[in-house]
Amino acid sequence: MSLADLVATYLAWLEAELRVLLTPQPALIQPAVGGHYAIMQYHMGWLSTDLEPVQAPSGKRVRPLLCLLACAAVGGDPATAVPAAAGLELLHNFSLIHDDIEDASLTRRHRPTAWALFGMPRACNAGDGMFSLAHAAFQRLPAQGVRPDIALNALRLFDETCVRLTEGQYLDMSFEGRLDVSVEDYFGMIAGKTGALLAASPEIGAVIGGAAPEVSDAYRRFGAALGRAFQLRDDILGIWGDEAVTGKSAASDILSKKKSLPVLYGLACQAVGAELRRLYAGPEFAAADVARVLALLDAAGAHTYAQEQVHHATIEARQALDRLAPESTAAPHAALAELLDVLAERNE
Amino acid sequence: MSLADLVATYLAWLEAELRVLLTPQPALIQPAVGGHYAIMQYHMGWLSTDLEPVQAPSGKRVRPLLCLLACAAVGGDPATAVPAAAGLELLHNFSLIHDDIEDASLTRRHRPTAWALFGMPRACNAGDGMFSLAHAAFQRLPAQGVRPDIALNALRLFDETCVRLTEGQYLDMSFEGRLDVSVEDYFGMIAGKTGALLAASPEIGAVIGGAAPEVSDAYRRFGAALGRAFQLRDDILGIWGDEAVTGKSAASDILSKKKSLPVLYGLACQAVGAELRRLYAGPEFAAADVARVLALLDAAGAHTYAQEQVHHATIEARQALDRLAPESTAAPHAALAELLDVLAERNE
Repeated sequence: MSLADLVATYLAWLEAELRVLLTPQPALIQPAVGGHYAIMQYHMGWLSTDLEPVQAPSGKRVRPLLCLLACAAVGGDPATAVPAAAGLELLHNFSLIHDDIEDASLTRRHRPTAWALFGMPRACNAGDGMFSLAHAAFQRLPAQGVRPDIALNALRLFDETCVRLTEGQYLDMSFEGRLDVSVEDYFGMIAGKTGALLAASPEIGAVIGGAAPEVSDAYRRFGAALGRAFQLRDDILGIWGDEAVTGKSAASDILSKKKSLPVLYGLACQAVGAELRRLYAGPEFAAADVARVLALLDAAGAHTYAQEQVHHATIEARQALDRLAPESTAAPHAALAELLDVLAERNE
Repeated sequence: MSLADLVATYLAWLEAELRVLLTPQPALIQPAVGGHYAIMQYHMGWLSTDLEPVQAPSGKRVRPLLCLLACAAVGGDPATAVPAAAGLELLHNFSLIHDDIEDASLTRRHRPTAWALFGMPRACNAGDGMFSLAHAAFQRLPAQGVRPDIALNALRLFDETCVRLTEGQYLDMSFEGRLDVSVEDYFGMIAGKTGALLAASPEIGAVIGGAAPEVSDAYRRFGAALGRAFQLRDDILGIWGDEAVTGKSAASDILSKKKSLPVLYGLACQAVGAELRRLYAGPEFAAADVARVLALLDAAGAHTYAQEQVHHATIEARQALDRLAPESTAAPHAALAELLDVLAERNE
């Protein structure tokens, strides 16, 4: 089966599981809590701003696909890993709900963010609800035939990921207003903020598929390198992406003064660093400032540098995957390689 | 051993476990994340507003005590349940950090709330960190000799509790601005917001202690009734508590127009309900309004009614406990009964 076929099958399973998880249970508590779940369902793209059923953009489902493909690649039955895949997707979406609150972002996937629509208090609490349900998802593994000790081990990896995620978010916030963030600091931050979950996704799939520790570790390294490629590509698109394709305004990460890798590279550059630091230390950017920053980043070779980093991370991920080939089932293994290329080369 | 002796022993274990959990691990990610943990440690009362070591008020530790006493009462070794007890205390404190954000509360335990001191974005993220660490705590159970299937079962009860907690918080927020909240709505709300965790605490302790399902269920019912008594007593103290003892300003729940049980009883009262509803629908209360509300609640007999409800819940909890007596170890069983009385009669 091709990536497209596997993806279609897996996404159908995943969607059904997510719908079960984000539906209120026959109430242990009496009054109606539908409004709490409606906030989560809105964020997932299932409800309109009027809370009518709708199919709005809902993200790429990269994390659950990595989990299910890795489970299949190590010879496991991917159907047994669907609850964990759903938990990974819910964790990702919980983090988006709270990031949008913490960053005061008004738009997500072309729609108002949850807090912008429902207010900060209810959206914060709905994020906590989704975080709880992400964990509850893993409790559905034993009913799929997963042994309790394996389910507990998957949850351990998941909880360690949650801790790393909040550490990464802390670092990202602590970089604001600082002009001395190093490239090493940056890689440490993204290892938590985006890398931890993308590393854990195939690792957890491999664990549920019954892989030995050294094999699931190798899937973790694959996911970590894929995560770097993914985030670095995101950084490039945030500056040089095509507005019509990304759906974000052009150079949006410059306008928001985000400390992404190309900017850090420019700030540390002998030739243009001093002028860039002056600009970044100053007031909010006007259009002319954005144009000047773009010119300085070009002069520093920041685009080329960042694209090289994407290339390095992609090769590292590919090598980790190739070393796993002898033990892998062919179709899902090939699909993982294809997914890596798609993510590293994407324009949206 | 008396309650005091058991409490002293258990609290020493608990404190050591909490300190381990809230210390950054040898960094998987390179940059320093100490500031993330400092927010959590400040909230726990371990750091001053200047982030110097201090011993500030840190709460009554009711939930971990219920867990450890129940574990001992069913004949288990309470030392094995310490990680779960720490997880329950961290979950409680996570919910306080986020509640303070959602309610815009400036003071907690006589000090600035975490968000008031560190800003909303960092405090929200620190709450998420504590929520993650609360789960990670349960992963320390197997090292204490707890079987993986029992640890997974304890986590299942814990995660169901997390979901109920967010539902209860949603209901509490949805009651704001409503004048038609019924007493039934109220009991449904507190069953989630405070009851779920207080019910799960002794249940999880019993499960880890090796209790049969019907026994751990009975501990759950004990905890649920104790939770009602606890919350109802809180409602009484929020209106009629002694400022010098509670540390809160007198009649603070009237001033904030909180829909606690005595107020709902007054709003539904034939004799005074109409005037109370007019007052609650109007602008913020001045001192004269507070005095008038207190007089109307007295006329309605709201204090007596609420105290009767505390009494009913206490008797229900006591009966649940008495039915467990034949199988219980004497000292921890007696300590649970004593803890119930202390909580139901407390003035702070």
